[in-house]
Amino acid sequence: MPETIDLGVTADLHVHLREGKMMELVTPTVRDGGISIAYIMPNLVPPVTTIERALEYKERLQALAPKTTFLMTFYLSRELTPDLIHEAAKLKAIAGVKCYPAGVTTNSALGVDPNDFSDFYPVFKAMEENNIVLNLHGEKPSSDKEGEEIHVMNAEELFLPALIKLHDDFPNLRIVLEHCTTKAAIDTIEEINIGNRGEIKVAASITAHHLSLIVDNWAGDPINFCKPVAKLPQDKRALIKAATSGKPYFFFGSDSAPHPIHAKASHIGVCAGIYTQSLAIPYLAEVFESQGKLEKLKAFVNDHGKSFYHIKDEDLVNKDHCILVKKEQHIPEVIVQDDLKVAPFQAGGKLSWSIEWKAL
Amino acid sequence: MPETIDLGVTADLHVHLREGKMMELVTPTVRDGGISIAYIMPNLVPPVTTIERALEYKERLQALAPKTTFLMTFYLSRELTPDLIHEAAKLKAIAGVKCYPAGVTTNSALGVDPNDFSDFYPVFKAMEENNIVLNLHGEKPSSDKEGEEIHVMNAEELFLPALIKLHDDFPNLRIVLEHCTTKAAIDTIEEINIGNRGEIKVAASITAHHLSLIVDNWAGDPINFCKPVAKLPQDKRALIKAATSGKPYFFFGSDSAPHPIHAKASHIGVCAGIYTQSLAIPYLAEVFESQGKLEKLKAFVNDHGKSFYHIKDEDLVNKDHCILVKKEQHIPEVIVQDDLKVAPFQAGGKLSWSIEWKAL
Repeated sequence: MPETIDLGVTADLHVHLREGKMMELVTPTVRDGGISIAYIMPNLVPPVTTIERALEYKERLQALAPKTTFLMTFYLSRELTPDLIHEAAKLKAIAGVKCYPAGVTTNSALGVDPNDFSDFYPVFKAMEENNIVLNLHGEKPSSDKEGEEIHVMNAEELFLPALIKLHDDFPNLRIVLEHCTTKAAIDTIEEINIGNRGEIKVAASITAHHLSLIVDNWAGDPINFCKPVAKLPQDKRALIKAATSGKPYFFFGSDSAPHPIHAKASHIGVCAGIYTQSLAIPYLAEVFESQGKLEKLKAFVNDHGKSFYHIKDEDLVNKDHCILVKKEQHIPEVIVQDDLKVAPFQAGGKLSWSIEWKAL
Repeated sequence: MPETIDLGVTADLHVHLREGKMMELVTPTVRDGGISIAYIMPNLVPPVTTIERALEYKERLQALAPKTTFLMTFYLSRELTPDLIHEAAKLKAIAGVKCYPAGVTTNSALGVDPNDFSDFYPVFKAMEENNIVLNLHGEKPSSDKEGEEIHVMNAEELFLPALIKLHDDFPNLRIVLEHCTTKAAIDTIEEINIGNRGEIKVAASITAHHLSLIVDNWAGDPINFCKPVAKLPQDKRALIKAATSGKPYFFFGSDSAPHPIHAKASHIGVCAGIYTQSLAIPYLAEVFESQGKLEKLKAFVNDHGKSFYHIKDEDLVNKDHCILVKKEQHIPEVIVQDDLKVAPFQAGGKLSWSIEWKAL
C-alpha cells in the first residue's frame, strides 16, 4: 500500500483561468492538481468589474468543472463604487477585490497607482464593512530615475510600506499580499501578526513555483518567468520556511498563469506567468517532503486559507477529499488541447506524489 | 553636410565570431559595425588551445574579412603549458588567453574553477613574461548553498577578490575584467589604478548593451539575455560613467555573441548572448550622445584598448578610419543569410548614427 495523506477539502487562493480555449483547457485541471476551491483572478480583457460579469464568468467555469468551488473577484479600478461593493456582497457575487499596480504584469494596464491608494479609500471602506478581502499584487512599477531605483528585484520590497499603511488605515480590512517572493515580505507579514490573538487581518499567499525558483532559473528559461520574478536563494529559503511553518497567515495561492507556448517561447515580449495548476499539490508535496514537513501541507493548502477567507461547508459545491498518494508521475513536456499548447512548470521532469479524490 | 566624427582605427576587444555558417554571416559585419580591429574569443567547440588552431581560425576569419585585423586568443584549460605560451608568443599566434569559469556561459563547460587559479600559475607566469594578456570572464558559478548565496546578480561582485589576488600575485601580468556589469567592478578597477602613473596592468572592457540594459530588460526579453546578466539601474549608470570618463583603463569590448534566433526564442534553455556586432559603434554613439559625451567616444573605441594591448600600426592589415556620421538608420528585425537568422540588439529600433570608412 503506498503512503497516503488526506488533505481534506483543499483551496488554491490565487488562480488564473482565462477565457476561451485556454479556459476550456485549464479549468478542469484545477481538480487534476488536487484543488477543490479556486479563488479566481479578474484580469480578463476587459477586466471583471461588474456583478453580471463575475456571475456569468463563474457560470462558465462551473460548467467546465462542476465539482470545483469557485470564489470570484473584482478588478480594482475606477469603475468600482462603494454601492457596487455593498450590492456584490449582498449577492455573494465576489469574495475579494484584486489590486494590480498599473503595468506590472499580464493584463494590468488598467490597474492603479500604488503610490496613492487614497482615491480608493471609499471602496476599501465598503469592503471592510462587507467582509470583502483585498488582494494585493505587491509590486511598485519599475523606474530607473536616479534616487528611485525600482526594478523587478526590489519592486516587492519597496511596496511593503504601502501594505503597512493600508493595514493601519483599514485595520479591519482583510488583506492578502499575493504570491510573495521575498524574505522582506515574509518578515513584514510576521511583524504585522506578532502578538495578534484575534482574527488574522493581513496574510500572504505563496505559490508552488516560488518555493523552487531563484533568479538563475528564469535567466534563460522563460518557462520560469513570472511576475513577481523569483528572487535570491535567501528569499526562497524564507518562503519555504514560511510555507512549512504552520503559521496561519501563510497559505497557498498558486498564481498558476497559463500562456500558449508560443507566448513563452519568444525572443521578445515573453508573457509573465507559470502554469502549475494541473499538478499544484504534487509540486508542493515535493518541496514539503524535501524539508521533512509533509505534516504541515494540509494546513497550508486547506485550513489556513479557508479560515482566512471564512469559507464554510455550505459554500462548497463538493466535499470530496484530496488524497496525496506516494506514486511517481512524469510531468508532460506540454499539455495539448486542439491547437492550444501549454508547457507546465518543470516540463519533462518527475514528481514523487500523485492525487486521488475520495468521495465522502 | 551631416555632422561627422573621425574615430580613427577602432578596436573591439571582445568578439565572438563562431564557426561555420554563423562565422560566415557575422565576420563581415565587424567592419559594418565600424570596427577595424577585433579581438577574437576562443570558445569554439572544441575550444582554441593550440597554435595551429588559432592560426587556422584566424586564416578563415581573414578570408571572410580581408580589411579587419584579427587578434587571437587561447582558451585557458589544462591543455595550455608554459612552453606553449612561450612558443605562441614567439610566433605572435595569440595576444591573450581567455579564462572562463566552468559553466557560466556559452561553451564554458571546459573552463576553470575560479576559487583556485593556482594550478594555472605557471601558465600565468609565462604569459607575464611574454606580454600575453589574461582575459577574465569575471563570474563565480552560482550556488544556493546556505552561507554561499551565489547567483547571477552577485556572481561578478563575488569574483572581484579573485581578480585582486591575481593582480597581487602577478603585478606585471596585464589583466582585463571582461564585459563588466556592476558598480562594484568599476569601483575595483578604479581602486587598482589609483595613483598608478606607469603602464596600466588591470583594465575592464565594457559592452554596448550593458550601457543600455538592466535586469528588467532581460526579464521577458531573451534577446537581451547574456552572461554576465545586466544588473541594476545604479550599475548601468556606473558603467556609462566609466565608459564616457576618458579613463584609459576602460575600453570597448562588445561581447557580441550571436545565436540563431531559434536558440533565443525558446521557453527553455535560451542561449546567453547579445548580437551587437553589425551596429557596434552606432549603439555606442547613441549612449555617448545621450550623455553629451560624444567627444569621449574615440578614446573608448580606439586609444585606450589599442594602448593597453600594445597594438601598433604595423600590426594592422588596414588603416582606414571609421567615420561616425549623423544619419538615422533602422535596426533590422532580423539579419538573414541563407537559412540562418540572427536578431540584432534593439531589433526593429532606430539609431541616430551611421558608419562610413575613409581610406587614408
